[in-house]
Amino acid sequence: MSDTLAKVNSELPGGFRDYLPQEMIVRNRMIANIRAVFESFGFDPLETPGMEYRRTLTGGNPDFRMITYDARKSTARLSSDVDDPERTALRFDLTVPLARVVARYMGMEGADRIRLPFKRYQIGNVWRGEKPQAGRFCEFMQFDADVVGTATPVADAEIIALMVVTMRTLGVEHFRVRFNNRKLLNALSAYAGFDPALAPEVMRIIDKLPKIGRAAVLREFVKPTRESAPQVTREEAIATASGGHTDVEGAENEEAAFGLGLPSDVADRIGAFLDLTGTTDELLNRCDDLFNGIAVAEDGIRELREIVAALRAMGIDERSWAFDLSIARGLAYYTGPVFETFITNPDGSSIEGFGGVFSGGRYDDLVSRFTDANVPATGASIGVDRIFDQLTRLGKITRVQTLTQVLVTVMDQSAMPEYLAMVSELRAAGIRTMLWVGEESAFKAQLAYATAQEIPIVIIAGDRERAAGTVTVKDMRARRQAPFARPSLVDTVRHALGASTV
Amino acid sequence: MSDTLAKVNSELPGGFRDYLPQEMIVRNRMIANIRAVFESFGFDPLETPGMEYRRTLTGGNPDFRMITYDARKSTARLSSDVDDPERTALRFDLTVPLARVVARYMGMEGADRIRLPFKRYQIGNVWRGEKPQAGRFCEFMQFDADVVGTATPVADAEIIALMVVTMRTLGVEHFRVRFNNRKLLNALSAYAGFDPALAPEVMRIIDKLPKIGRAAVLREFVKPTRESAPQVTREEAIATASGGHTDVEGAENEEAAFGLGLPSDVADRIGAFLDLTGTTDELLNRCDDLFNGIAVAEDGIRELREIVAALRAMGIDERSWAFDLSIARGLAYYTGPVFETFITNPDGSSIEGFGGVFSGGRYDDLVSRFTDANVPATGASIGVDRIFDQLTRLGKITRVQTLTQVLVTVMDQSAMPEYLAMVSELRAAGIRTMLWVGEESAFKAQLAYATAQEIPIVIIAGDRERAAGTVTVKDMRARRQAPFARPSLVDTVRHALGASTV
Repeated sequence: MSDTLAKVNSELPGGFRDYLPQEMIVRNRMIANIRAVFESFGFDPLETPGMEYRRTLTGGNPDFRMITYDARKSTARLSSDVDDPERTALRFDLTVPLARVVARYMGMEGADRIRLPFKRYQIGNVWRGEKPQAGRFCEFMQFDADVVGTATPVADAEIIALMVVTMRTLGVEHFRVRFNNRKLLNALSAYAGFDPALAPEVMRIIDKLPKIGRAAVLREFVKPTRESAPQVTREEAIATASGGHTDVEGAENEEAAFGLGLPSDVADRIGAFLDLTGTTDELLNRCDDLFNGIAVAEDGIRELREIVAALRAMGIDERSWAFDLSIARGLAYYTGPVFETFITNPDGSSIEGFGGVFSGGRYDDLVSRFTDANVPATGASIGVDRIFDQLTRLGKITRVQTLTQVLVTVMDQSAMPEYLAMVSELRAAGIRTMLWVGEESAFKAQLAYATAQEIPIVIIAGDRERAAGTVTVKDMRARRQAPFARPSLVDTVRHALGASTV
Repeated sequence: MSDTLAKVNSELPGGFRDYLPQEMIVRNRMIANIRAVFESFGFDPLETPGMEYRRTLTGGNPDFRMITYDARKSTARLSSDVDDPERTALRFDLTVPLARVVARYMGMEGADRIRLPFKRYQIGNVWRGEKPQAGRFCEFMQFDADVVGTATPVADAEIIALMVVTMRTLGVEHFRVRFNNRKLLNALSAYAGFDPALAPEVMRIIDKLPKIGRAAVLREFVKPTRESAPQVTREEAIATASGGHTDVEGAENEEAAFGLGLPSDVADRIGAFLDLTGTTDELLNRCDDLFNGIAVAEDGIRELREIVAALRAMGIDERSWAFDLSIARGLAYYTGPVFETFITNPDGSSIEGFGGVFSGGRYDDLVSRFTDANVPATGASIGVDRIFDQLTRLGKITRVQTLTQVLVTVMDQSAMPEYLAMVSELRAAGIRTMLWVGEESAFKAQLAYATAQEIPIVIIAGDRERAAGTVTVKDMRARRQAPFARPSLVDTVRHALGASTV
């Protein structure tokens, strides 16, 4: 085959990447830590396929415009018919599949039944056809935790607590979970005096506050509209209306050329709302005053007070969370509390270009896409790749070359049975061990490999050692070596590892 | 949104499935066990994208006919042009992407360099457009371990040892790793007297031996050919020629209507070869006699002897492996030793309908699809879903409803801060804890949930308990409960869990 065909280029399509071992080892540790925290909060694992019917993912919404990936058999008749019920696509989040799963199994009898409240986590890749940019890929991992079948704000507080504990467990020192309630934002139309139908657009613009600043946000409110709404903006709005916990980004990072055409006094009142400051408790009181008599706002404030009380009852460090009126979350989708986690400077201020890494909110209507039952839900999604990227940029990620702890060198092919016996003993003792099987046989090449791969221990058993019934255990970090009696191999290596690994 | 759009059906496309928590918990334990064994053998994790250029996956082979999944942006111009260099597809195995990774990074300088020998494992889903059947899906998980940059049979022996240790670690009592060498099968044409160009077809038919039996295999050799080679057969042969460690199955399970048209004396000599029996050592000697003077066979036998010696040196139980001339592996791809693991009856005999669960072999030419370098490699792939399915059919898989160890019930909304404090303490102590956040508030509903979910411990703190400064710890398995002083909550729960969990 390789003789007759032309060489193939080893490139990947743009927006896709490999994770080599030196990164995967660190990434897998992050994932294991996140998993342990999620499980400690009572979440159980779920897995759904990467591919679903497109109608499942879009809700059959003819205006769905997020760029997703269609997936179809290489032999299939080509069809771009959006109404084709057999059309399949790659999932763009894990939340919509969760809603499908709940609708499908909640009423089932027998072993496959799902009971409410259903607390599940899911780790998996999702695919989006966005233009690839630095730190943003077309395939990326999501790690979601959601509680389905619960309306109490206590469940939202537990999600915020989960976010805080997870970030701490990942060793992130400086971060803050900021939260708000979409009900306050909904109340804003009554207070500021704009058409409630514009609320999703207003929220989408408010959501840009941390990225483009107050002045630009207020300008967008008053800028004239474009008669035919700007294509990109509309796409984003519709996409996010159908999406899960993770934003569609892109156009969201800059001030738009056209706006909502609101009168300046309306924009001023929105500005006054956004200017409310103070501690979480002060801010709640000021919202109470501002929205006095607007029922939906009173609901929202009551929920936020419940969340705050629950966070305090759980003993979640006050410095790690804050009520923040600028958090809107792009998704038109959320119905109540919304949360977003930012890695910050040590003083708590934002870091330029660092988007949210762990976000979510309450979405009480999504399961009803699939069933008549009323199934409220809340949850959040951690962007493992994005955290990895931000921690790398902060210099907090140290690559690890290998998990292998011991290299057994081959000094003499005829002694292979000896080396194999050692390898077997070490592995049985739980020590991660590699036998040299490389093409080069020189001892120097084997040692150079161990050095480059940062393997801490090298075992050497040449003629002399074998004649004396010993093996040489070389500690590559401490740069020392000594012979030991062959029977004490495992104990000696264990001891050396204990001394030389952190 | 949900008000205006029609309900969407919660079905999955055929060939795709959900893994609910009750299965995922067991599956995740299997995966963790496999991972630990692979790491102990010196393999490091790698991750590559689910989507690649189609030419990467097919090698640009115009005859590539495996049914894969194309994946393209929902906005892309439709194209079925097989030569379109931008055409992307979902991976159908993890071996071809590994070859691409090695070719791409082995020559690189700096942090992203890959050094040989490169021992990597990869866990990931792959996609194939095969007709879904019982226990066979269009999306399934593979878990591969491969060593790249090694020609020694010792590396093949290590792969066999890995297979044995992994199966034991998974708690599979009865299994056998059967291995052979493609070089013996290549020598067969010289011995039996057929055109070497037919060798891949002969191997493909031999590979059906465990499934269709000796008589049917011999019939296929002599049956007349179909002038225009049967479509399915040809597709399979070509697909497997480009595939990785996992077979394309389907037509491989039954006797074909047309054959190779070999003279009956040739078929008889192949039969004589297949009839060779004996222990591993006897069989090696008999092959030596049979193939006396055929160089490629002598090479193959020497390699097998090295493998056997290495397995013995590693102390791998002789009952868990065997040299077996009927193992051919469908893939035209392999160049040397090939291995396949079967779950068996307690007496070592095959179980009807149980295909191989952990298979692989040496493939010294795949990396050369992407580079001029000569990079020999060997490895194997464990079919996690297939093992899970076979163990389920054997009744060896016990579903686990939840990982949650403790349910803190809500007896009184006003005592929520108390419950939240308990939940927080238990979680901080590493105890997997759920607070009741369900829509029903009745204690009976909470207890029924704990029973159905098989949560072992329930915490109850009603008026009485709180007045007395106690909590009731109810052990659901032992069916007993007792009050304890509130400060001893964590210790009490730990003790109860120790007593009631296995």
